[in-house]
Amino acid sequence: MPNTMKNQAAIVGIGQTEFSKDSGRTEMRLAVECISSALDDAGLTPKDVDGMCVFTMENNPEIQVQRNLGGGELRFFARTHYGGGAACATVHHAAMAVATGSADVVVCYRAMNERSGRRFGSGVQDRKQEASAEGSQYAMYSPFGLTTPGSWVAMYTQRYMHQYGATSEDLGRVAVSSRAYAAKNPEAWFYERPITLEDHQNSRWIVEPLHLLDCCQESDGGVAVVITSAERAKDLKQKPVMLKGSGQGAGDQQHMMTSYYRPDITGLPELGLAIREAYSSAGVGPQDIQAGVLYDAFSPFVLITLEEMGIVKPGEAADFIKDGHLDPGGRLPSNTNGGQLGEAYIHGMNGVNEGVRLIRGTSSNQPGDVDNVLVTGGSGVPTSALVLGQP
Amino acid sequence: MPNTMKNQAAIVGIGQTEFSKDSGRTEMRLAVECISSALDDAGLTPKDVDGMCVFTMENNPEIQVQRNLGGGELRFFARTHYGGGAACATVHHAAMAVATGSADVVVCYRAMNERSGRRFGSGVQDRKQEASAEGSQYAMYSPFGLTTPGSWVAMYTQRYMHQYGATSEDLGRVAVSSRAYAAKNPEAWFYERPITLEDHQNSRWIVEPLHLLDCCQESDGGVAVVITSAERAKDLKQKPVMLKGSGQGAGDQQHMMTSYYRPDITGLPELGLAIREAYSSAGVGPQDIQAGVLYDAFSPFVLITLEEMGIVKPGEAADFIKDGHLDPGGRLPSNTNGGQLGEAYIHGMNGVNEGVRLIRGTSSNQPGDVDNVLVTGGSGVPTSALVLGQP
Repeated sequence: MPNTMKNQAAIVGIGQTEFSKDSGRTEMRLAVECISSALDDAGLTPKDVDGMCVFTMENNPEIQVQRNLGGGELRFFARTHYGGGAACATVHHAAMAVATGSADVVVCYRAMNERSGRRFGSGVQDRKQEASAEGSQYAMYSPFGLTTPGSWVAMYTQRYMHQYGATSEDLGRVAVSSRAYAAKNPEAWFYERPITLEDHQNSRWIVEPLHLLDCCQESDGGVAVVITSAERAKDLKQKPVMLKGSGQGAGDQQHMMTSYYRPDITGLPELGLAIREAYSSAGVGPQDIQAGVLYDAFSPFVLITLEEMGIVKPGEAADFIKDGHLDPGGRLPSNTNGGQLGEAYIHGMNGVNEGVRLIRGTSSNQPGDVDNVLVTGGSGVPTSALVLGQP
Repeated sequence: MPNTMKNQAAIVGIGQTEFSKDSGRTEMRLAVECISSALDDAGLTPKDVDGMCVFTMENNPEIQVQRNLGGGELRFFARTHYGGGAACATVHHAAMAVATGSADVVVCYRAMNERSGRRFGSGVQDRKQEASAEGSQYAMYSPFGLTTPGSWVAMYTQRYMHQYGATSEDLGRVAVSSRAYAAKNPEAWFYERPITLEDHQNSRWIVEPLHLLDCCQESDGGVAVVITSAERAKDLKQKPVMLKGSGQGAGDQQHMMTSYYRPDITGLPELGLAIREAYSSAGVGPQDIQAGVLYDAFSPFVLITLEEMGIVKPGEAADFIKDGHLDPGGRLPSNTNGGQLGEAYIHGMNGVNEGVRLIRGTSSNQPGDVDNVLVTGGSGVPTSALVLGQP
């Protein structure tokens, strides 16, 4: 049974800092800046906020952020584990709070110095060897050198390419499409810097079969969204963006980025589950989605995401992309902000903001009117998805 | 506005391992054992579970627990930060999921080797000095030796005793009451080992004004509860324990255990907020509560909890306790399992189990029929509370 929250909550404000490689300030300051900006956008103040939803990986605790914002009491706070898989889950949990009256105004945020501080791309090799399930979860893979996100995704990618005959150029077309959008988005790192397929092919290996340009950026920055009830949303500054559907998913035999013991590793069943949850609560299917913000930490997972969405059948995403369907005028313009490949890697939360802009009609690469956009959280991890739509 | 979840969800199963000082097995095994036990109690199987709620401090990730249980997909998972403040929040979040259809059967659990493994009592002195809000939150206190939970609570206690004239014996009466209950609970560490007020007074200082016997235990063990909808609960094995009310709270100028910059530090306003949220969603007040499970990591916070509950006015808890009102036949029999002082310290989750037993009528120290019990999460931190009641 899907959740019953269709259109009960709305995103009424979005905010973000600049995206950079060296913010020059603390993660706390980034958090306060992006939240202040989102509240301004909504026409609300810190005193209106009574709930917060964040990642377990967030370094800025809700209470410290609230103190620095100048806010007051909180009566709801929840977190989600599993890295970028939390991106859409923060909004899902906020909607649950609003729908049940557990909070009136919930802020979701992610702020990090992920380039100038600790770089995620460096992986888990610095983690302590601990006799705990959490600490030892990569123990089966580390001895083989699988210690970084790139290495974990490469394993899935090799198998996908082998099974369906996809090529490095097929991955490259995702990389090129994203940077083409980014080139027209002044907020994006790749602004005015489009790349060619040749650039992609010539970029160095990170982990075969992943070239540098198949990998998302490491970025400093903060992103925040504000959620309230559909009713309260009517009186606020912006046209509300309705939360039509939302869901989370963890699959059978789920590991963090390394679910290699499944019978098949060419899909992302946890993502498929989260998407189906979002579709069914919204009462929509793939045919109703006009644009996508598809979590692109690595280009190959964009192909698999299209398949898990039901936009194409398994193995058919490469042809779909080759036909230009992610690009302007295509069937599913996607990652129109440049994605995490081209705009910035803020753990998927910048994708939520772009989803909101697509419904508002304010994307730098707005593909006409959009009734429904699908936004997805992290790929290869327990994850989450949203269907955002018009009021 | 309170939440609208009254009686929408129920606790239908509870489980726990033995509580010890050296479990002799992994935290993961403790988790699987206590959850299996809770599912058996409910008449459900791991395949029925589609949601999980835990602490951010939990070392056993939901997906790894689910693999080891033999469960399948999850479509809801949420965590709560702030140590024991999460205890009742796990149940609150589970109720939100059930009420919105985001999950059907949610397991909340906490499993840890907190005595034979890393001891919480040792505090934060081993933490890295980090340039992050999370990492540096105790930086203002550490230089003064305030590095352990005992030291943080001692500061509140000194002020409370100064302001209201409470004495060490007043704290001791809480310690004695808990151990008296524990002495009759075969699951408790203090089973058959009651203490006297003299024992309390003679026990060594941990941090003045806290004696050893004012401090909860360090324990190994696991506790789990199972939540589902009121409707599904009707068909299960146990009489359902209704979730009448629930709430969370973080206060103005909230710090972790160290909210010393408030105008007054003799109260726990975040706890008061969580309790008011729980009361108002249940439509009850202090007069409707017949028993309490009051988070007792340290005895003095039990006094303040009674005041935040509205059972007595500020400064009057000592007399209330001296009159025997926490004891059998008193106004508010509390911590009838022995509490965390006498049974075990499982971060408040063993208190949720005792709350369920009080409604079922199966406590080792059952005080007759109980219509409503209040259970509280961690004190001095952003926290949570539940009103559990009869169907």
